[in-house]
Amino acid sequence: MSKEEKNAVYIGRKGTMNYCLVIVTIFNKGENVCTIRARGRSISKAVDVAEISSRRFLPEIIEIDTVNIGSEELEGEYGMKTVSTIDIVLKRKTAK
Amino acid sequence: MSKEEKNAVYIGRKGTMNYCLVIVTIFNKGENVCTIRARGRSISKAVDVAEISSRRFLPEIIEIDTVNIGSEELEGEYGMKTVSTIDIVLKRKTAK
Repeated sequence: MSKEEKNAVYIGRKGTMNYCLVIVTIFNKGENVCTIRARGRSISKAVDVAEISSRRFLPEIIEIDTVNIGSEELEGEYGMKTVSTIDIVLKRKTAK
Repeated sequence: MSKEEKNAVYIGRKGTMNYCLVIVTIFNKGENVCTIRARGRSISKAVDVAEISSRRFLPEIIEIDTVNIGSEELEGEYGMKTVSTIDIVLKRKTAK
């Protein structure tokens, strides 16, 4: 299990600020990296969480490292369906 | 005006397939790059458009180049509000 997977935050139906709080807590514990993951309709919320965490809550401490999008096959009610996914990696800013 | 700005596709309230068709048309006209732009709730749809265009419609021809997220200040009903944004650059695959 990589460090990124260990600190994965999966975006679901909770409020945006709940996820921001999780991320702030992860970095306050001393972790250096955290991945925000979302699928389908939650992708917009994932971007909000990344932006609010890095620009409003911890602007001096973390920054957006990489953003990747992809697709996943999920079993739906009427067979397989494809959903879009996003992975946003946040990392601790390196000391200058 | 850069080439990217010229071929910007802004994601709004139309159906996902309308935007995919616009992108297929851009690349079929011989353009080499195209940027998908969206704000707020439309971000999920922008990712769907990028994935469907590049994986289903033109898998041999285009690929996702870069994905960037950011924030914009917009004038809302009750003053300024911040919305998240996404820019997804699609490019023509280079001949091997």
